[in-house]
Amino acid sequence: MVIIDVFRATTAICAAFSNDVAEIIPVGSLSEALLYKNKGYILASERQGKKPEGFDLGNSPQYFLDPSLKGKKIILTTTNGTNTILCATGADYIFIGSFLNISSLAEKIIQLDRDVILLCSGWQNKFSMEDAVFAGALTEKLRHNFDFSEDDAALCALYLYGLAKVNLIEFLHKSSHYNRLKHLNLEEDIKFSLQIDITSIIPFFDGTSLKRY
Amino acid sequence: MVIIDVFRATTAICAAFSNDVAEIIPVGSLSEALLYKNKGYILASERQGKKPEGFDLGNSPQYFLDPSLKGKKIILTTTNGTNTILCATGADYIFIGSFLNISSLAEKIIQLDRDVILLCSGWQNKFSMEDAVFAGALTEKLRHNFDFSEDDAALCALYLYGLAKVNLIEFLHKSSHYNRLKHLNLEEDIKFSLQIDITSIIPFFDGTSLKRY
Repeated sequence: MVIIDVFRATTAICAAFSNDVAEIIPVGSLSEALLYKNKGYILASERQGKKPEGFDLGNSPQYFLDPSLKGKKIILTTTNGTNTILCATGADYIFIGSFLNISSLAEKIIQLDRDVILLCSGWQNKFSMEDAVFAGALTEKLRHNFDFSEDDAALCALYLYGLAKVNLIEFLHKSSHYNRLKHLNLEEDIKFSLQIDITSIIPFFDGTSLKRY
Repeated sequence: MVIIDVFRATTAICAAFSNDVAEIIPVGSLSEALLYKNKGYILASERQGKKPEGFDLGNSPQYFLDPSLKGKKIILTTTNGTNTILCATGADYIFIGSFLNISSLAEKIIQLDRDVILLCSGWQNKFSMEDAVFAGALTEKLRHNFDFSEDDAALCALYLYGLAKVNLIEFLHKSSHYNRLKHLNLEEDIKFSLQIDITSIIPFFDGTSLKRY
């Protein structure tokens, strides 16, 4: 299974592991995250696109590249992505996907050669364009190794990516999430999140915490 | 709200009302439908694409054009579409949409000038390409009258329809539902279901039964 939340949780997680953080523990609520305060963890969170009171970090992927985070344990709770991770069960492997690590992730999936679910987080339980476009990009890399003739969602994601790939940023200009982030002056996050293959690291979820695979 | 199940329930319902049936009562199960047997109703159903034992009609839209059905009351239960209709609540108007009545439906929606949900039935709780393409076709007709800047699903449906509209049948050749129907020798149903504007009738659901609006 691949967890997808391009804007911004799974991108931030990939960035963090490319920066050698030790571990990320996803939690479902702010109050649960705050239980870890002053216990040696970095607290990271996002609600409505912003960093809540009492947290050390927001959800901007670039912040997770700060050298001071190397070797640290991070507690992460976001509006959509961390809940998707916490819902993910039953798969032998639960990987974290983003444009940052898409090619190494595709290679790993092909190598494992098992049925795979691409799980898009969306936005507040609704469909979100950037996650579907990423699922299409990943499907394109997997298409010759997997049969998705019974899966219209994968096929349509592939079509969307076909439209988007000429200029990802321009295509996503019209997405609702782009516009939410733009209003928060987070356009740099969007550009960062659409970088392709800047790391080969694949974070995975063991049911409790995220680690480097 | 618009209920969409292009292959084939909402197409069949539009065909039936264009043939002047009196009323269609959607029910959730075969056993519930069979309670109406020998009580003056026509029993129509589909399970796994086929007509179940004890029913008068399947779900092939063309069958609903039979002149003997004029003025009749029909009980209908299908795998996806009727359940979607029965889930539909809370809207002031619940309309039945298909390519057969798309333009008159769009005009009615524009005339009513209220927020509208396009509810795609899909296939066994999964996304289905033909319903999304229809939602895109309807969105195209509504786009200048409604704001969907916060709705990535409508925008992506519109993109899909943009790819599909040059040749709907060819585009849907790859959809899983097309292939399921093809294996059941129901290609004629597909062609029938993709006819545009052969009726101006808009069926609506009053919470109990479907009638002509």
